[in-house]
Amino acid sequence: MAAGGPRRCRRLEGEAARAVLANADTLLFDCDGVLWRGEAAVSGAAAVLGKLAAAGKRLCYVTNNSGRTRAAYTEKLRRLGFPPAEPRHIFSSAFCAARYLRQALPPGAAAYVLGSAALAAELEAVGIPHLGPGPAALPGPAPADWLQAPLEPAVRAVLVGFDEHFSYAKLCQALRYLLRGPDCLLVGTNRDHRLPLEGGAGIPGTGCLVKAVETAAQREAFIVGKPNRFMFDCVAAEFPVDPARTIMVGDRLDTDILMGNSCGLTTLLTLSGVTALDEVRGCQDSGCAARHSLVPDYYVDSLADLLPALGE
Amino acid sequence: MAAGGPRRCRRLEGEAARAVLANADTLLFDCDGVLWRGEAAVSGAAAVLGKLAAAGKRLCYVTNNSGRTRAAYTEKLRRLGFPPAEPRHIFSSAFCAARYLRQALPPGAAAYVLGSAALAAELEAVGIPHLGPGPAALPGPAPADWLQAPLEPAVRAVLVGFDEHFSYAKLCQALRYLLRGPDCLLVGTNRDHRLPLEGGAGIPGTGCLVKAVETAAQREAFIVGKPNRFMFDCVAAEFPVDPARTIMVGDRLDTDILMGNSCGLTTLLTLSGVTALDEVRGCQDSGCAARHSLVPDYYVDSLADLLPALGE
Repeated sequence: MAAGGPRRCRRLEGEAARAVLANADTLLFDCDGVLWRGEAAVSGAAAVLGKLAAAGKRLCYVTNNSGRTRAAYTEKLRRLGFPPAEPRHIFSSAFCAARYLRQALPPGAAAYVLGSAALAAELEAVGIPHLGPGPAALPGPAPADWLQAPLEPAVRAVLVGFDEHFSYAKLCQALRYLLRGPDCLLVGTNRDHRLPLEGGAGIPGTGCLVKAVETAAQREAFIVGKPNRFMFDCVAAEFPVDPARTIMVGDRLDTDILMGNSCGLTTLLTLSGVTALDEVRGCQDSGCAARHSLVPDYYVDSLADLLPALGE
Repeated sequence: MAAGGPRRCRRLEGEAARAVLANADTLLFDCDGVLWRGEAAVSGAAAVLGKLAAAGKRLCYVTNNSGRTRAAYTEKLRRLGFPPAEPRHIFSSAFCAARYLRQALPPGAAAYVLGSAALAAELEAVGIPHLGPGPAALPGPAPADWLQAPLEPAVRAVLVGFDEHFSYAKLCQALRYLLRGPDCLLVGTNRDHRLPLEGGAGIPGTGCLVKAVETAAQREAFIVGKPNRFMFDCVAAEFPVDPARTIMVGDRLDTDILMGNSCGLTTLLTLSGVTALDEVRGCQDSGCAARHSLVPDYYVDSLADLLPALGE
C-alpha cells in the first residue's frame, strides 16, 4: 500500500503502528522465521497474535512449506501457544497446490508426486488420485530398463514439493510423464532454494528439485507458492478480504514481501528470520524497478515490537 | 573456420569434401549420435574412420558422457569395428574433470563425487582421493539429523557427473561441503539436459543434477565438457593440434559445434543424431550472434556420406 513514488521502508512503531493495525482487518503471516524457528516460538509472537485475535482481526497463515498438512499446522500453532486456528485459516503450498490441481485437472486425472506424505494427504482431501511419495528405486541396471518402469495412464500432472526421497529414479519417471506433452501439467509448490534450520544451518529446498525437473523436461513449472499471487487468491476465495485492509507479514523479501506488494497489501518485514535490514536498503537505493518491488512498507525487529501498539 | 561474414552451412560433398579432408590432419569425434546410437554403430561410420586412420589422420574422441572410463571407450570402439584407439585418444568429460581437478586442487585435497564408478576411476587414475559414488541414505528421519552425517575434512571440491544414484541425501551432503565457501570448488562434467537412448527416448542428463546443486549452493559450476573449450585444451595439451587443420564432428549444435566454432576448428554436423537441418537453418537465418555461433561449416546426413571423398 505505497502512497505513490518508490516505496520507502519505515520502522513500524508508535502512533503509526497503532494506525496501521487499526486499519487492518486481516493479517497474513508467514510462519518459519516469523512465528517460530524450528520448534521454538519467536519470543512475544504468540502474545501479539493473541491480542490481534482478541481485537477481532482475521489471522491467516501462508507458508511455502509443503511438508505439513493444514491440520498439522493448526496443531503446531496450538502447541506453541498461538491463538486457536482452524484448518481453513492455513494456506500452505501443499494445500494450494491441491487446490490448483483440483481446478486445472479433469475429473479422474491423477498426479505423480515428488513430495511428502502431507502433500499427498492434501491431494487426497480434494479427491485427486496420486502416486509417488516415498522412496523409489530404478527398475534395473541399464538405462533401457529405466524406461520399463510402469506408468500410470491417468497421470496428467507432475507435482514437485519438498521430497527427502527425491532421486534419479523419480526424476526419470517425472520426465516420462512430462514427455506426454502439454496435457501433463508441471506444478511446483515453491522455489525456495534452501530451508533454514535452527542455528543458521540450511538444507536444500524445493527450488532445487523443481529446477532439476524443469531442466529435464525443458519446461517451466507453474509455482503455486509465494511470490505467486495464487496463494493470496486462495485466501481471497475463502474469506472476503480487502487488500487495502490486509497486512502481509513475512521475513523474506523475494517471497512474502513481493507477493504482498504485488497484491496491493500492506507489507511488514520482520527481521527475526532470514533478512537483514541492509538488504532492504540495498533494494530501496537501487535504480531497479524489480528490486523496488521487494521493499516492504514497514519493518520490525520481531513481532514482539507490536505489543505496545496493541495496548501493552 | 568460417571465411569472413556470418557462417553458412553447406553440405560436405564432392570436390569440397576431398579438399576439406585433405586439409585436415586431426579429427575430433563426438560419439553418441555420430559413431553409434546405444550399442549399434552408425552404418558406414567405422569404414570412414578406418579410411581416415589409413590416410594418416589423427582421430580423437571427445564426449560429454561421464559414465565410462577411457579404457571402456577404447574397448567399445574396438567392439563396434572402429580402428584401434589408445586411451590417450579418448577425451571424456570424466577424464577431463579429473584432469581439471588435478590442476585446480592442492595435493591431498579430496573430491565429493555425485557420479559413476567410472568417474571415480578417472579421479583415482590421477591420484585424487574421493568419496560419494553409489547409493546414499539420509542419516535419520529429521532435517536436524541430516546435518549430522559425517563430512570428510579433506574435501575441497564437489564434482557432479551422471549419477543414477543421485538423491536428496547426496544433494544435502554436496551443499554442506559447498557451504565451506569458495575453497570448495563446484565442478560439473557437462550440462546436457537429456541423454538420448535408442529409439528416440531419453532420460534426464547430468545438466539436471548440476542445476539442482547450483540452485542449493547459489553458485555456478565450472563445466569441463563441451561447449567449454577446456575439452579442446585437453586435446591440445596431449597432441600438437593446429586448429586450422582440425575438424570437429558432432551431432549437437550447442555442445559439439559451438565448441568447435569457438576454438577455430572446422565444424561438421552429422544429422544421424539429435539435430535436424531445420534447426541449423533457424540459427543461420536468425539475426542473433549467439545463434550464429551454433552454425556448423558443413553437414552430412551421416558419416557414411564421406566414403566417396575417401576414394570409394
